[in-house]
This record gives sequence, C-alpha cells and structure tokens, in this order.
Amino acid sequence: MPLSPELTASITDAVAKNFDKELAFIQKVIQYGGQRGEEAAIQDEIYSQYTSRGYATTKLNMDPDALSEQPGAGKVSAKHSKAPVVVGVLEAKSSTSGGKSLILNGHIDVVPTGPEELWTHHPYSGIVEGDWLYGRGGADMRAGNVANMFALDALRSIGKRPASKVIIESVPEEESTGNGTMATHIAGYTADAVLIPEPTNEQLVRANVGVIWFQIAVAGRPVHVLKATEGSNAIESIWKIIGGLKELEKEMNEQKKGRLHFEELDHPINLNVAMIEGGDWASSVPAWCKIDCRVALFPGVRAEDVAAQIEQAIQKVATTDSFLRDAPPKITWNGFFAEGYVLEPGSQAEDVLKAAHKQATDSDLQSITMPAYLDTRIFSLFQKIPALCYGPIGESLHGFDERVSVISIQRVTTAIALFIAEWCGLEDYDATTT
Amino acid sequence: MPLSPELTASITDAVAKNFDKELAFIQKVIQYGGQRGEEAAIQDEIYSQYTSRGYATTKLNMDPDALSEQPGAGKVSAKHSKAPVVVGVLEAKSSTSGGKSLILNGHIDVVPTGPEELWTHHPYSGIVEGDWLYGRGGADMRAGNVANMFALDALRSIGKRPASKVIIESVPEEESTGNGTMATHIAGYTADAVLIPEPTNEQLVRANVGVIWFQIAVAGRPVHVLKATEGSNAIESIWKIIGGLKELEKEMNEQKKGRLHFEELDHPINLNVAMIEGGDWASSVPAWCKIDCRVALFPGVRAEDVAAQIEQAIQKVATTDSFLRDAPPKITWNGFFAEGYVLEPGSQAEDVLKAAHKQATDSDLQSITMPAYLDTRIFSLFQKIPALCYGPIGESLHGFDERVSVISIQRVTTAIALFIAEWCGLEDYDATTT
Repeated sequence: MPLSPELTASITDAVAKNFDKELAFIQKVIQYGGQRGEEAAIQDEIYSQYTSRGYATTKLNMDPDALSEQPGAGKVSAKHSKAPVVVGVLEAKSSTSGGKSLILNGHIDVVPTGPEELWTHHPYSGIVEGDWLYGRGGADMRAGNVANMFALDALRSIGKRPASKVIIESVPEEESTGNGTMATHIAGYTADAVLIPEPTNEQLVRANVGVIWFQIAVAGRPVHVLKATEGSNAIESIWKIIGGLKELEKEMNEQKKGRLHFEELDHPINLNVAMIEGGDWASSVPAWCKIDCRVALFPGVRAEDVAAQIEQAIQKVATTDSFLRDAPPKITWNGFFAEGYVLEPGSQAEDVLKAAHKQATDSDLQSITMPAYLDTRIFSLFQKIPALCYGPIGESLHGFDERVSVISIQRVTTAIALFIAEWCGLEDYDATTT
Repeated sequence: MPLSPELTASITDAVAKNFDKELAFIQKVIQYGGQRGEEAAIQDEIYSQYTSRGYATTKLNMDPDALSEQPGAGKVSAKHSKAPVVVGVLEAKSSTSGGKSLILNGHIDVVPTGPEELWTHHPYSGIVEGDWLYGRGGADMRAGNVANMFALDALRSIGKRPASKVIIESVPEEESTGNGTMATHIAGYTADAVLIPEPTNEQLVRANVGVIWFQIAVAGRPVHVLKATEGSNAIESIWKIIGGLKELEKEMNEQKKGRLHFEELDHPINLNVAMIEGGDWASSVPAWCKIDCRVALFPGVRAEDVAAQIEQAIQKVATTDSFLRDAPPKITWNGFFAEGYVLEPGSQAEDVLKAAHKQATDSDLQSITMPAYLDTRIFSLFQKIPALCYGPIGESLHGFDERVSVISIQRVTTAIALFIAEWCGLEDYDATTT
C-alpha cells in the first residue's frame, strides 16, 4: 500500500528541515579521516550517535578465526583493521503491522588519499563548494552511512518509527575484505531486506562483480650491475608476470559475451596493478620485487576458480623464464576473495525502492551494473535476501577531490526514509521507550 | 731500478708473516657492517689504526657546497653519507732518493645486503671457508682498503719506510657519488700516482665507464578501479618510460663500434632499473610511481650530455602519452654524475706495477675494461696522474655471498708493498719519528 501523499510530504519535509544538521554531521565524519585500521575513533562517534538515539547498540570484533572458516570472507593480513563494527537495533513495539524487517548498512572505512598536493583542498576538508561536498570517503560512503541514521531521524521528528525491526550497521573493511559486514553475518544479524547507500548516482545496482586481491613477490638473482646480463632483475621479472596477467584479463573480458548485465560493458573486468615495490640500490640488479593487484570476476564465478586461473597464468610465465623456473613467484591472497551477485528483478523490496525513489527524485529508478566490490553481495549470496545498493551522486571515488552532491544526499535520505516507512510500516513514536 | 731479489723476498715474507693479523683485521672490518651513512664507527676505527701507525691523520667532511661547485662531483641527496673521509700522511725523511709520491686509496662504504635469508651466512659474518672470505663489502673493497695499510706495515716490519710521501685514504660514498674521494681532491691531496685495490681479479683496469644515477617520478590520474580505463596508471606510465630508456640503452651500446677497449664487450652500457615504488591501494589506480636507475657512459662522453639524452628519451615517451603530456615525469639526478677514463699505457707507474705483480703472482699483468664506476676516474680526469686500479679476486660483488679470495688478498698485499718499495723508494725506518 503506497504511502499517502500527506505522509510522503511530511517525511520529505522532515528530511529537509533536518538537513543542515545532517550535512554538518557528514562534514564532521569526513573530518575524522582515518585510514584502514584507524576507524576506532569514528566508530566510537557512531556508537555514541546510535545509543543517543535509543538503538540497542553493540560493537562486534572481526574475529580472524571465525572469518577463516567463513566462505566468502576476505583474507586477513597484517594490515587488516581491528576497529569495531557498530550495530544498532531498533525493535518495533507492535508486531501486528505486517511490516518487514530491514538492515541499513554503510561502510565507514575509506581508501588512501594519495599525494595530498594533488587535492584542491585538504583530503579531509569536508568543504562544500556549490553543490559538491569534498573529502576522501564523503561519497564512498560516509554520506550514505550518515543518511541511514538521518532517514530514521526524519521519521522520529514526525512522531513515527518503523513498525518492524531495523538494524543499522556501520562497518569497516568494505574497501579491502568485506569482513566488517561479514562479521555481522557471522553474528547472525539478518532481515527481510538490506539497503546500502553506496554512491550509485541514485541508481540501483542490478549486477556486481566479485573482487580478489593478491600480492606477487619474486626474488631476483642479484649481481653487480656490471654483470647485469648475467643477473636476473626482479623488477623485470615482475613485468613479465604482469604481461601474463594482462592476457588473463583479456580472456576474462572476452567471457562477457552472452552474459546478462555485462555484455554491453566495454571492459567489465579490470586487473589493476596497484602497488609495486622492489630493489635496494641503484647499482645493484634488484633482488626482489612485489606487486599488489586487484581483479574482478563475473557473478556466478567462484573466487577459488579465478585464483586458480591467476596461479596458472603466473606459472605459465614462470616456466618460460630461466630464472623464475627455479625461483617461483610467491602468491599471497591478502584481501577480497569475493564472488559477485545479481539482484533478481521483481522483488517487493525493489518495487518499494522504485516508488520511494520516484517520490524523492521525480524520476524513474534506473539499474546499473557495478564493476566494483560491494558488501551487498554478502546479503545476496549468504542470506538470500533482496540486497539493494542505492545511494547518492558522487564523483572521483578513490581519486583526488572525491566529492558527493549535497542535493543528492538530501534526495537519497528522503528516499531511504520513504522506503523504511513503506517497507517496515510505521508506528507512533513513544518517547518513554528510550 | 728493479728491487733486488733479496729485498723482494724479504717484503714477500714480511707480508706472509703478518697475514694472519691482516686477515683477522679484514674480518673485523667486515663485521662492523654499516650501510650508506653508517660508516662513522668503522672510519673511527681506521682513524685510530692510522694514528697508531704514526701517520699524520685527518678527518675530512664532504661539504655539499664545495661539492656542488666541483665538476664531476656526485649529486648530494638526502641519503648522502655524512661520515668522515680519513686521510693519513706518511712523509719521507729523506727527499733525495728520487722516489715518487703515492696515494693509496680504498673505499669503506658497502652496498645493501638484500634479503638476508638469501645469504648462506650472515651478510656481515666475515667467515672464511676454504679460500673464500665471506661478507658484504669484503671484496668490494674492505679487503683492499686494509691491504693498503698492511702493505706499509710489511715495509715497517723489515725496518723500512717509503722514501717519498705516501697518502693513505679511506673514503665513503664510492658506491653512490664518488664524493669521498672527491673531497680529498678538493682538499688538495695529490701525488705522482694512485693505486686503488678494487676487486679486479688481479688485473689492471685499462678503461672504465662513467656512471649516472637518476630517479624518475610520475603522477597518475587516479580513479576507482571500476573506471580503470579512464584513469592513468602511474605504474604503467613508468613502464612506458622504461621502454624509452631501454631504446636509449640499445643506441648507446651500438656506439661501442670502433671504440677501443669496449668494442669487444658484449654489452658495455647497462641501464639498471634498480628500485621501484608506487601506489597506495589495491583497488585504486595508482597515482604515483618512481624508479631509480643507473646507466653507464663511455669514457670521453660527458655526464651532462648523457643526462640530456635521458631527458630527451623520457620526453619522447611523454609526448606520445595523453596523460604524461600534461603531467611530465620529474627527473632527479641523485648520485653519480661521472665520466669514465682510460689509463694511457706506457706510464712508469704501470711498469712498476707490472713488475710487482709478476713478483707477487708469477704471472703477467693483464688489463681489463671495467663497466662500472671507479673512484680512480677522479685522479685520472682531474689530477691527470697515473691511476692504477688493481686488486684481489672477488665474486658476487653487490650480490649474495659476496666473497674474496684469501690467497689473492695476500698476493695483492705483497704486490702493493713491492710497488711502494719500487715507486717511492725505501729509507730506513726510524722509530724515533713516531
């Protein structure tokens, strides 16, 4: 049953009236900064925000042992964050409304800023210029993380609350392993649907790739550069291996043919040679080199199978090289080890989001294929619930001058509030319960 | 006038009798270790060894300002050593002998060890197995540095000393800039000839390349890897530039044609891509990458001219790349900026060394072309004196399990002692002068 025009207008107004406060809090959250492993302070802030709103709030640890036994968990390396996952639960008083339970999930972790001098403002400035709010992690996805909270606030400000259980989650490790959301899954948090407001440009993610991270290390045969032709240059060996991986990338992209949601994309599978380090001395042939890579995989393809293909591609290069044959490259899986997902069309959750989006934006909801990792996959693959990834307009994600559209944050907050109202149903807010 | 057979035998015996002590001291010097910038402790030890022998001993600083005005000096970077140069002077009492003055020079600095687990013993073990003495810097060239001192000791032990001035120098920075020896040149130390016992396998260096060090840094256009094809991957940009440099290397090697001492070498000019670093995050297209390189140049070719060729090669690549065109690579000259040299045959100094070598080894002195940097070039190019580079048999220089032949150290110490006796002449040692 669609929301009444009066209720829709009332919720829309409530988001608008509170939006200055929402924007200011997003700016504050951006200004916290915090790279991988440094999210404890901002998670404490989120914890205190949840508790002050009366949510039953818990901190979860990402337990390496539990994760190691969990299919689809990312690989825990030394760089893995130890920051807590924060989960707030808002139970309904009435259980007779017919509403459905919901998870609102958002990640709090951000990727590195890169050289600061290439930013127009400080990477964690949170400055607003025109319609753009600038800062690392603003778009991806602290704005969405905060929007979840302020969507619930809007309902409360009109004297309402969800008539079904809502679980709100702020997670680390979405940019590296997915283990923050995986910890909520291991802890048993589930619902009838999940919404994650990643910066999807107000579109719904229909299909999403999986992602694998890996590191390759090779040793060289170091000699004085005066005998360079007798040595084995580890940096040049790594480049041969990259050549083999690029061939694999090409083969993987050829498999887009006939694949729904992906065939029309130009280059859905990106292999990213992302980090490199090697050598100690300009006049010595380098004795070691290592690279960190990321590759995508089509939904329905298992991470284990792509990992095996990667191993084979590297081995193929190694067997053609007189040095690598005897000193095989070492492969470490050090992050994402994740399969992708497809959101089956026609779910009731999607219909409710379509209506909410239409009301908030006066336009029809479009679907997209996302060639990047999303935590939504955990709910789709392991909880088999409708997993909706839908959020604000952003630009330069992972790049310099990352930014998110301010008006889009407001529209998305409105859409989330309308979605909650319709999906969960509403009941009167009773101040005595907090 | 050749040394008498009796004096030759007496000097040879003196080296042999003292050789256990010499070997033990070389082991001690290897065990000091000390990477670039960490040579102060070992130089203090050398200083105390020189003073205990009665040499008038001085510590020199490598002054960046003076170096910056000195043609042929290496470029001073943040990694430049601040360790002192140690110079000992042994003046002759008699100036009537007709002997000639001499510099005995040796570098004390060593190159990095690389991963320690690839060494059979600890890199600074100083272990002797069979005829091999193991350790980083043993061959290159702490054995030679110490041999200079023990050659003089051998003369003293038979009651003799050089009848002309001998300057003994222990220098840092030979592996990176040449600025240790350059500091002695700036300070005005010179002589009628110089001998440097680098590990030349008991051969005389006839011709030697120059060396340039440089770093290239590029910025990328970072984006989320989901838009990898729109980004500019700094690591891949660097690789394009390496391709351009490899072409330059090929062109430079083609110029060996008709070039005395180099035409017969297979690949005299090596461009070494030695160190690489770039990128911050596996799922971001890397925004930066830098490489450190070393390239050789034929003697007679100016470092400035090769630097200009390198700049042109990089610029040529940059103009073909849509991103690098707007974000040109940054080149830093951060070490050697040195021309090579040729030792003109027929000098009296070479004749004296030939005789000394024959006496010490019972074989004829062979000449070699050395495709690596040598401090000898400073004496050859800027002091125009016969510059003899001749030292023991070594293996795996700059590599794992670097080693030097023990019997060869003894032979070379003998040859140096005989060379001093003949070149400088001898006078009776008078204990009251120390």
